[in-house]
Amino acid sequence: MGVIVQKYGGTAVGTIEKMKRIADRVIKKKEEGYDVVIVVSAMGETTNQLIEMAKCISDNPCKRELDVLMATGEQVSISLLSMIFKEKGYDSISLTVFQAGIKTEGIHTKNRIVEIDIDKVKRHLEEGKIVVVAGFQGINELGEITTLGRGGSDTTAVALAAKLQCPCEIYTDVDGIYGVDPRLYSKAKKLDYISYEEMMEMSSLGSKVMETRSIEIGYKYKVPIYVASSHKNVKGTYIKEFDESMEQKSITGISVNDDVLMVTINKVPYSLKNISNIFGKFARQEVNIDMISQTSPREGFVNISFTTSKEDESIVDEIGKELKEEFDDIEVQKDTNITKVSVVGLGMRTEPGVAYKVFSLFADNDISFKQVTTSEISISYTINASDKEKAVNVLCSAFNL
Amino acid sequence: MGVIVQKYGGTAVGTIEKMKRIADRVIKKKEEGYDVVIVVSAMGETTNQLIEMAKCISDNPCKRELDVLMATGEQVSISLLSMIFKEKGYDSISLTVFQAGIKTEGIHTKNRIVEIDIDKVKRHLEEGKIVVVAGFQGINELGEITTLGRGGSDTTAVALAAKLQCPCEIYTDVDGIYGVDPRLYSKAKKLDYISYEEMMEMSSLGSKVMETRSIEIGYKYKVPIYVASSHKNVKGTYIKEFDESMEQKSITGISVNDDVLMVTINKVPYSLKNISNIFGKFARQEVNIDMISQTSPREGFVNISFTTSKEDESIVDEIGKELKEEFDDIEVQKDTNITKVSVVGLGMRTEPGVAYKVFSLFADNDISFKQVTTSEISISYTINASDKEKAVNVLCSAFNL
Repeated sequence: MGVIVQKYGGTAVGTIEKMKRIADRVIKKKEEGYDVVIVVSAMGETTNQLIEMAKCISDNPCKRELDVLMATGEQVSISLLSMIFKEKGYDSISLTVFQAGIKTEGIHTKNRIVEIDIDKVKRHLEEGKIVVVAGFQGINELGEITTLGRGGSDTTAVALAAKLQCPCEIYTDVDGIYGVDPRLYSKAKKLDYISYEEMMEMSSLGSKVMETRSIEIGYKYKVPIYVASSHKNVKGTYIKEFDESMEQKSITGISVNDDVLMVTINKVPYSLKNISNIFGKFARQEVNIDMISQTSPREGFVNISFTTSKEDESIVDEIGKELKEEFDDIEVQKDTNITKVSVVGLGMRTEPGVAYKVFSLFADNDISFKQVTTSEISISYTINASDKEKAVNVLCSAFNL
Repeated sequence: MGVIVQKYGGTAVGTIEKMKRIADRVIKKKEEGYDVVIVVSAMGETTNQLIEMAKCISDNPCKRELDVLMATGEQVSISLLSMIFKEKGYDSISLTVFQAGIKTEGIHTKNRIVEIDIDKVKRHLEEGKIVVVAGFQGINELGEITTLGRGGSDTTAVALAAKLQCPCEIYTDVDGIYGVDPRLYSKAKKLDYISYEEMMEMSSLGSKVMETRSIEIGYKYKVPIYVASSHKNVKGTYIKEFDESMEQKSITGISVNDDVLMVTINKVPYSLKNISNIFGKFARQEVNIDMISQTSPREGFVNISFTTSKEDESIVDEIGKELKEEFDDIEVQKDTNITKVSVVGLGMRTEPGVAYKVFSLFADNDISFKQVTTSEISISYTINASDKEKAVNVLCSAFNL
């Protein structure tokens, strides 16, 4: 029957009892003839609790040690789940971060998977074992434990499936992918299918169901991904390549992202070198910069705005200080009361006028926006957080989501 | 000034606040000019809590996975402690089981350290870092996580000190080594010094302050060991080679061990092959057998008695079943209501009559014993648990402990 990778999130493995139920699901798959690789997250709120402990020590704890600390969460889950399989009479083995051969690079707490030495996993599968792998973590070129950031277990699962050339099932708190977060729009419709490109765009724009990097890997290696509920038995959503069987819509979904910090740097002495120097500082700290806009030079100065994640606020402050030392006149402003709303759809490629339609809807409903950026299949607007609900309702009903 | 290894037990690192106090102690040592390696146990009751979780899954959880699970406890401690050092402005690095180069062999949950690849630790020390190592665990030849059994962090610390050819300080719940456990005899005296041999004998006979294996390594590599309180500032006990400066006593201490399971196997068909077969079964399961006695052969049968640890009761039952299948007449009896009392002292080598003195004391006080065994520097008696208090009092006052 071939191999399958299944990923279960923190809620799904939140207690021993829940783990036992998950185990029964997995065993059913095994009995159908599949070789099964399971990727698990830390139990319930474990990761947050570990971070809380670190925060008792420092507002900005050493990231290398934070990774060592957080990695224990998944190690607890894999060992317990593997014990459960054995207790139920199925051979199983847990693989820790050092054993699973997942190699990463980047900075601590935000690493990327670069390679997987899959032979060990394959060998255990050939021996008939259910292989349980710690999600969310890897080992970098220095032999250090690294973590992949929020949603990192999804990436572990899809990357393993890519290496094993098999499908990947993501079992999570939600029962599939919706055109818009149902908590924001109660009439939201669940999608049967979504293309990799659209899902990638939705994720990178703030939809939290799956981490962008995991979809990227799925897209690159053509891994069929299925997202469904870990506790309900209802049909989920397939993430796959666009094909004719999928209904053509101009807009597939809306992403809403509250984790937006808008940074404005006023009075930057205008030169290409200065501007590249500024963005270079953020790049070296791996701060993700988005929605850049720049005023025309005036009296030798320009103003630069961009958005980033709120979690990078302390790095922004640090770099702000550096910049003030380099340039006397510079002023750094931060605005956190911002929401980014994005409309996403492959159909935009062929159907023009989506941007115009959104502009009109916003104008008719008195929603002002601060910035707008477009990609081939999405348009994003930053608006005041207070207009979020109105904007979502207006867009969802206009685009029939 | 050279290097020093300090070990802090679970109570000492039980909370972040306690860890901060420990860190200040360590920093004082660092400021005195020492290169410091810290070995820590899991926080407070963590190890027991992890075992409890495993027991929710199985009465006899997979030991390989239990080791993976338990190893997370120390990993949490090392990362937090290392964060604290950094926050206090001292460079530090935590080394997990895979990074510290501690190689083990044996069976899961009871491994032995066989080698330490110390270069990594040395390199970090040379770079001025406070190196924080996860105690209690190692990696076996298959690359599996293994643990060293109760008290295993002491062994990690002493083995590191042996490799670094430096002293080892063990900071723990008690404030040193007593001639007898003060909870059993309130007037017990703390020792300034004890020889390796005596300490080894006391530990292996049940004194719980230090694990026997750690003293063995200290003895073999001549590591000066200092045992003291992690929270009180009082003088502890040095464990070192016997020399003339140490007061000569016939008896240095008494070990009392309640963790005794007395096993009697009646009606074993008498042949050397049968008897070696029986003990072979226990050896293969790494059950520690002690205080063996055997009756004279009678009508072709012998009765064999021995003691072991209560935690091996399930293995004893298993082997008992096997034996009954092999030999029809065999009867296996277990008695857990037993205490082993041992008197220990290097002085026994030169001063005869200690055994006689104990026999008289027991006879005068109506304490009957079931078995007696002697070594060069100790004599052990198994008595009824109900006689324990009386026996300890009689011996302590007679030998002035």
